[in-house]
Amino acid sequence: MGRRDLEPHEIARLEDDRVVFLDQRLLPDEEAELECRSSADVAEAIRTLAVRGAPLIGVAAAYGYALAAARGEDPVRAAETLVAARPTAVNLAWAVEEMERGDQSPEALAEQARAIHADEVERCRQMAEHAADLLSPGARALTHCNAGGLATGGYGSALGALKTAFARGILDYVFVDETRPLLQGSRLTAWELERAGIPHGVIADSAAAALMARGEVTHVLTGADRIAANGDTANKIGTYALAVLASHHGLPFYVVAPTSTIDLATPSGAGIPIEERDAGEVTERFAARNPAFDVTPAELITAVVTERGVHRAPFEESLHEAVRKPARGEAERVA
Amino acid sequence: MGRRDLEPHEIARLEDDRVVFLDQRLLPDEEAELECRSSADVAEAIRTLAVRGAPLIGVAAAYGYALAAARGEDPVRAAETLVAARPTAVNLAWAVEEMERGDQSPEALAEQARAIHADEVERCRQMAEHAADLLSPGARALTHCNAGGLATGGYGSALGALKTAFARGILDYVFVDETRPLLQGSRLTAWELERAGIPHGVIADSAAAALMARGEVTHVLTGADRIAANGDTANKIGTYALAVLASHHGLPFYVVAPTSTIDLATPSGAGIPIEERDAGEVTERFAARNPAFDVTPAELITAVVTERGVHRAPFEESLHEAVRKPARGEAERVA
Repeated sequence: MGRRDLEPHEIARLEDDRVVFLDQRLLPDEEAELECRSSADVAEAIRTLAVRGAPLIGVAAAYGYALAAARGEDPVRAAETLVAARPTAVNLAWAVEEMERGDQSPEALAEQARAIHADEVERCRQMAEHAADLLSPGARALTHCNAGGLATGGYGSALGALKTAFARGILDYVFVDETRPLLQGSRLTAWELERAGIPHGVIADSAAAALMARGEVTHVLTGADRIAANGDTANKIGTYALAVLASHHGLPFYVVAPTSTIDLATPSGAGIPIEERDAGEVTERFAARNPAFDVTPAELITAVVTERGVHRAPFEESLHEAVRKPARGEAERVA
Repeated sequence: MGRRDLEPHEIARLEDDRVVFLDQRLLPDEEAELECRSSADVAEAIRTLAVRGAPLIGVAAAYGYALAAARGEDPVRAAETLVAARPTAVNLAWAVEEMERGDQSPEALAEQARAIHADEVERCRQMAEHAADLLSPGARALTHCNAGGLATGGYGSALGALKTAFARGILDYVFVDETRPLLQGSRLTAWELERAGIPHGVIADSAAAALMARGEVTHVLTGADRIAANGDTANKIGTYALAVLASHHGLPFYVVAPTSTIDLATPSGAGIPIEERDAGEVTERFAARNPAFDVTPAELITAVVTERGVHRAPFEESLHEAVRKPARGEAERVA
C-alpha cells in the first residue's frame, strides 16, 4: 500500500538494440519485463496486449519505429506493421506519422520517440489538473478499464485525474469496474490505486448501475481510444453503457484523454473501426461474441478533458480548437 | 448439441432419507449430484449456490421441510433455517409457508413438496406460452444470469419462453450475458441453450449496450427473484442496467416469473433486502464490493409475464390480480 508511482522508463523504454516493456499481461502477479528486438516484436507486444492503453501503444509504436531505424529495417514496412497491430486506438497511426515527419537518422528518431513518451506523461499531468477541477469534495468516482500510468506510459489520464484529486483531498473513493473479459480494472487499475494508497473497491461491471441508483457514485471518468471530430468516443467495451447509465442517473460522465487521441479525420463514431477480439477471451467453451470497444455518442459525454483544458459541446468546435492550438512548449514538435 | 431438456427429477428430488440436487456449482464441467441428509444440509446447498434460482430454491426449501418432517426434526427450527439461507428471493418464504399450511404428516408433506415442484414446472410451461406471444419473428433476444430449467426445477422462466419461441420458429438467436461474478450465464444458460440446440453467443455483460446500439438485440427477457407489489423487481445484479439500456434503445424489457415470485407484502423495491455476497467472488486480491442483486424500477419494465398471463402497468393492479386469481387446477393447493 502506498508504494511510489511507476516511473515512465519502468513502463516502456528504448535501449540501443531493444524496446523494453513492463509486461502488463502478467500483472499484478508478476512484475516482469518483455524485450522486443524488432518492430515486429513491438507490434506483437501491442497485438497481444503485453503493452496496452491508447497513449502507451502510441509511445510503443514510436519506440518500435526508432528501433527499426537503428536495426536498418525498411521504415515503410515497419510503419505498416506497427499501425496494423490494433485497429481502434488512433494513437498508433498518430505516433508513426509524428516519427515519419522529421530527421530519419536513428539518433534523431530515438530522441523523437523519447520526446513523444515524455510529452504523453506531461500531458497527463496537465489534463489531470483540468479534470480534477471538475470534481467536488467528497467525490466517489467510478472508472472503467485502466486509464492509468500503465495506459499512458506514466501517471495516467482518467486515473491521473483521480490521483491529482486525491492529492487535493477532494476524492474519497474509487469504484473500479473489473472490466471483463480481460480484467484490466481488477488487475491493473486496482494495482495502481493500491500503490497510490487511494481507497477503492473492485465491482462487477454490471453492478455500476445499482451503485448509481443508490447514490454511491458522484462522477464517472474514463479514458479514450479514439475521439471523433464530433466528440463520439471509442473506448473499452462497457464505456458506452456507463455513459447511458450516468445520463439516466444525472451524473457527469467525463472522458479524460490527450489530444493525440482526437482524430479530426474521422467525422463521427460510425467511422471508428471496432476491434472484435477472440471469443476465447470470453469463454473457451461456448460460442461467444467479443467486441473489445464501443462508441459513446457525444451527447452522452459531459466534457472531454485533454491536456489543453475542458472541452464541452459543441464538440465539433471545441475539439478542433483543442487539436489545432499547440500547447506551450509543444509548438516545436507538432509540425 | 441438441440433447434433451433436463427432467425435473434430475435437477431436484426428494427420496426417503435425503434430498438430491444436481450440483450447479460444478456445471458445465461435471454433472454430479449433491445429497442432503437434513434441512440444514439443504439450507447449506442453497446458501452455497449448489442449488440456485428463485423458483428452484423454493422447491428446495419445500423438499428440505419435508425431509425435516421425515427425520423428526423440529419443524419451526427447520423452517427458520431454510428461510434464512438467502435473503432476496421471496420463494423460500413462500414455499415454507405453503408447507406449513396443510397436513403435517411426513407423507402429506412429501406429496405437497412434490406438488410444489410439479407446479413450478407447469407454471413455466404456461408463462413460456404467454411470453413467446410477445416475441416477433426474427427475434434476437438478450438474457441475463440463468432463468432456465436449472433455476426453476425444469424448463425455465425467461429461458423457457425462449425455448418455446424457438420451437415456434420465431427466435433466431440468444445473446447470453456471462453474468459476473459467478458466470451463471456462460456456465449454465449457454449449457442449457446448447442442449436445446438454440443458436447463441456469450457476451461480456458490458457488451450488451453496444449490441443494442447496433440494432442486434430485439428483446430483453430476464427472470426475477422478487417482484414487489408496485412491480419493482429484484433480480441478479446487472438486470437493472439492462432495463435502463433497453429503455434508452427503445427495446422491450420483459420479466418472466411465476406468481410465487410476486410479494404483495412488499410495497416497492425499497423494501427488498439485497444480498451482499463475499468480495472474494469478484477478486481474491483487492478490496471489492459484491452486491448480488439489484432492483429494476417498475417504470423500466415493459411487462411482467407469469403463468397467468402478461401483466402491464399499472402493476399495483395487474400484479394483485395475478396473485389473487387462482389458475385453473391450482385452486385446491392455494389455501
